[in-house]
Amino acid sequence: MACSHSHSPDTQSALLQAILTELQQVKANQTVFESKLESLALPPTSPPSLTGSIPPLAGPSSEVPATPLVKPADLPTSPSLVARKDAATGKYSQRVILTTYPGQVGINPIPLNWGAKTAEERGPVVAARSAKSLKVRNAIGAYSGSYSVYRALAAAAGLIDPSHKPDYTNTEPPVEVPHNPAWDDPKKIVALDPYGHLVPQVYKSYLDAGIDARPTISITKAHIKLNDFDEAVRAGSLEVDGKVVVRIPTEWVNQSRLDSAAAKTARAADDVAAKHIEHAAFDAGVELNVSKAAVEPVWYLPGIAERFGITEGELRRALFEEMGGAYPELLTRHDLHTFLPPIGGLTVYIFGNPDFIRDESKELTLRIHDECNGSDVFGSDICTCRPYLIYGIEEAVRCAQRGGVGIVVYFRKEGRALGEVTKYLVYNARKRSGDNATTYFKRTEDIAGVKDMRFQVLMPDVLHWLGVKKIDNLVSMSDMKVSITTLGDHAVFSVDPPLTPSDLLQYDAIVNSGITVGRRYEIPEELIPPDSRVEIDAKIAHGYFSTTTVTDLAKTAGRMWEDLAH
Amino acid sequence: MACSHSHSPDTQSALLQAILTELQQVKANQTVFESKLESLALPPTSPPSLTGSIPPLAGPSSEVPATPLVKPADLPTSPSLVARKDAATGKYSQRVILTTYPGQVGINPIPLNWGAKTAEERGPVVAARSAKSLKVRNAIGAYSGSYSVYRALAAAAGLIDPSHKPDYTNTEPPVEVPHNPAWDDPKKIVALDPYGHLVPQVYKSYLDAGIDARPTISITKAHIKLNDFDEAVRAGSLEVDGKVVVRIPTEWVNQSRLDSAAAKTARAADDVAAKHIEHAAFDAGVELNVSKAAVEPVWYLPGIAERFGITEGELRRALFEEMGGAYPELLTRHDLHTFLPPIGGLTVYIFGNPDFIRDESKELTLRIHDECNGSDVFGSDICTCRPYLIYGIEEAVRCAQRGGVGIVVYFRKEGRALGEVTKYLVYNARKRSGDNATTYFKRTEDIAGVKDMRFQVLMPDVLHWLGVKKIDNLVSMSDMKVSITTLGDHAVFSVDPPLTPSDLLQYDAIVNSGITVGRRYEIPEELIPPDSRVEIDAKIAHGYFSTTTVTDLAKTAGRMWEDLAH
Repeated sequence: MACSHSHSPDTQSALLQAILTELQQVKANQTVFESKLESLALPPTSPPSLTGSIPPLAGPSSEVPATPLVKPADLPTSPSLVARKDAATGKYSQRVILTTYPGQVGINPIPLNWGAKTAEERGPVVAARSAKSLKVRNAIGAYSGSYSVYRALAAAAGLIDPSHKPDYTNTEPPVEVPHNPAWDDPKKIVALDPYGHLVPQVYKSYLDAGIDARPTISITKAHIKLNDFDEAVRAGSLEVDGKVVVRIPTEWVNQSRLDSAAAKTARAADDVAAKHIEHAAFDAGVELNVSKAAVEPVWYLPGIAERFGITEGELRRALFEEMGGAYPELLTRHDLHTFLPPIGGLTVYIFGNPDFIRDESKELTLRIHDECNGSDVFGSDICTCRPYLIYGIEEAVRCAQRGGVGIVVYFRKEGRALGEVTKYLVYNARKRSGDNATTYFKRTEDIAGVKDMRFQVLMPDVLHWLGVKKIDNLVSMSDMKVSITTLGDHAVFSVDPPLTPSDLLQYDAIVNSGITVGRRYEIPEELIPPDSRVEIDAKIAHGYFSTTTVTDLAKTAGRMWEDLAH
Repeated sequence: MACSHSHSPDTQSALLQAILTELQQVKANQTVFESKLESLALPPTSPPSLTGSIPPLAGPSSEVPATPLVKPADLPTSPSLVARKDAATGKYSQRVILTTYPGQVGINPIPLNWGAKTAEERGPVVAARSAKSLKVRNAIGAYSGSYSVYRALAAAAGLIDPSHKPDYTNTEPPVEVPHNPAWDDPKKIVALDPYGHLVPQVYKSYLDAGIDARPTISITKAHIKLNDFDEAVRAGSLEVDGKVVVRIPTEWVNQSRLDSAAAKTARAADDVAAKHIEHAAFDAGVELNVSKAAVEPVWYLPGIAERFGITEGELRRALFEEMGGAYPELLTRHDLHTFLPPIGGLTVYIFGNPDFIRDESKELTLRIHDECNGSDVFGSDICTCRPYLIYGIEEAVRCAQRGGVGIVVYFRKEGRALGEVTKYLVYNARKRSGDNATTYFKRTEDIAGVKDMRFQVLMPDVLHWLGVKKIDNLVSMSDMKVSITTLGDHAVFSVDPPLTPSDLLQYDAIVNSGITVGRRYEIPEELIPPDSRVEIDAKIAHGYFSTTTVTDLAKTAGRMWEDLAH
């Protein structure tokens, strides 16, 4: 292609000059805009140093904060609002609401009176931001904890209708966890919604009106089966009673296999039907009957703060900052005191008659277990988690078989709530530097800045929800040396030897919450994997409950990676 | 390069005139824009409608958004800032910064060039908000995912020094996962930081300068032990090879017990030393040698959006909204494209020599497993999760024993990433309404609005990080009927029968990411718990990979709660 060279140079130059002039003016205008935007960031009369600045990073200033920290005007029109244009797609309101404020036009939260005597007076926990719920929302955060992130992906990809109305038909609990006085005590339950499993029933009128209040607890019944229990039955330590521990009817298993095979067209190369018959002699072993409840965290912030002996403001600020600037409503909505944090919740397993939990004449065994994926699922030998969990289940079962009831609570607090990445870093440091019980806790502190973040002070809430008033048998190692009578007091954190509140383990938390504990079980010696002795002995020396004491921690050493040249 | 060859001078002049007109209109628009900005700049004297109003909730309005959505002036002075006074305690800056903006004074993010060729050019992922890091922070969110919430509790209670500098001595990986070309490909890895395990080494200069960049991946070595493997050895399906499957030296276990006992003072009532001796004849069984890596999610938002066929803006808006208004910087920081979501990550288990992963001449077996706490830990019989996981581990081990390498990846996506509360609601609805394979998926959709939210399109990233180029054996049921050649396209979500992208399960995601797959393994019939056939048959009918087909779904029915009157 050839260029045209036939234009009058004068005409072209004049036009180009005009264009250039216009462009220069546009550029100049932009400069003006820029300075105007900057001036907007300060309150009209404030000094320039306050403009859109982030505060001095060196530490707190003594100056009373009196300037807006959010640039007001450029929010809706600035290119920085990357999502603005996409809002017009219809899924969300066209305008982005970065945060809400009490008293904002249209904001009218449904009253939520934590600790009220009835469900109706208490009111539903509404965290949804869907059209009808946004105005009346009375909780910060989102349903389903972390899984709200996946819901976001589903919504962004157009796979879920954000206005989908859940159909709760047939989902109600098959096991009753009825109201008990602890539900009305805003000191006893602050980390879950005691009405969480009853939402579709007790708040039906709200749901019918289009308010998206969701269950934060669900309850079901199940059968569980692990080789460990088959072995325990074979070894005689667990009995088949036909109620809690049942022999799986092998005929039923085989019939199921045959039915399933009949429903299939087997391919020539893989004769499924034949396989079924081949396994007809299979012994199906035993299974355990269990009732279980999944519980998502719902935090009543004043109550959480009180447990830690801090102000609600301190708690809210720390949550906002440590989460990386999440949930500005923690700071702007002083009228909302309920928060659904994006963390894992807990699962309750009940063996025996769940009604016995509330019957003080019945024996009750409890195991509180904090998640440890490496051991619980994969059987890592560096800790005692899975052996202790299995032992706890068996003790719970035996209690149910004696006519009592057994409870195992599984908390999602991986690696002492430090997460698995930190845990492996600690393992490496331990294995490379002479793994022994003396330095067990120090390795964690070096890396994470803290020994443990599990904070058992929130743990007993689930027991109060269930109606537990006394525990006959607590399957747990727990701090016995330190006797704590008050929580909600910084003083408890400075006992000697120095202990963190997470060291004030289960026993103290339970007893201080008003539940009595009979005797405590220690894990039997034979269940302790040898490489986990470092952990166990370190814990005993730090005051965990044990019938033994450890006199020389340095003698308890784990194997190094190279120790076993298999 | 050539210009138009046929334009007359008149045409050219017309075009130039048109350009000029356009520019003049742009200039005029700026004038309008300017006046709007000026009207916004008057919060103290502005009409009430401009202050703190939220937009109409009924849906997108056609009005051009021109009002501030955040109350400008009352932020720092309003009582709504509940945390304000507490800021003076010194832990955090006195002024609350609800969100930051690009170009804000003091904000100067360390460049983060996703897909750059070297670690230095790429730059560290800095999500910390501590004093020195806040200015240079280049990622939204927080380290440790959900566990940032627990860190907040520790910080609020004064148990952790927010300025604690982690000591990474001896924490480096004992197993190499070295750079491979996929690390430099911003299409191949978007859901994790490929340098995540090397942070203390490759970004040492930043750490030395006080920047709090943290590892988001850690790698360690371990021994794992489950009864299942002892049984497999006894049954002859797993061999003791002395390398991957090793017999635990019983003498060592007993010596360890005796050492531990020697370090203890036994109480009279509980003679621990005697117990040790009593168990001297104990057979310790087998254990597996494994290398493992914990990986936290680090999302490169443009890449994540591309995988889902949406814009980055759509993704950011959905994350903000569905999480309940979390992380306003998703909307204000268009200069930051990296996000650390508060969700669980994944764990990689490697059996055999990890170097073989990158050696295409070596056989490779893979099992991708999505978390199911009820089955993986407790052995619930309603699904196949744990049996399949154990089978996957055994297959991985057998591959390593044949001279290859086996990988099991465990993703934290409980209940199809819907969470356990939803899962139990679905169980109840299934058990109460005639549990059969026909309605299996519908029950979930009724309640959750979607069948599944696991989104396997992000799953292959970890394989690329490891350097996997081909998989010989994939232990997985996966959609085979639907052959998808492009992702990042809404069209893939509307195949018939209707499938969600999470149904485009592992095989498609892997193959579409450029990794070849040899053969796929189905779970052996004898490992399927009978009550889980409803799930399995429903999945097969929906196109999951199977060597059988299901012709009559209604015939596959689970037991009702009352079916087994034990």
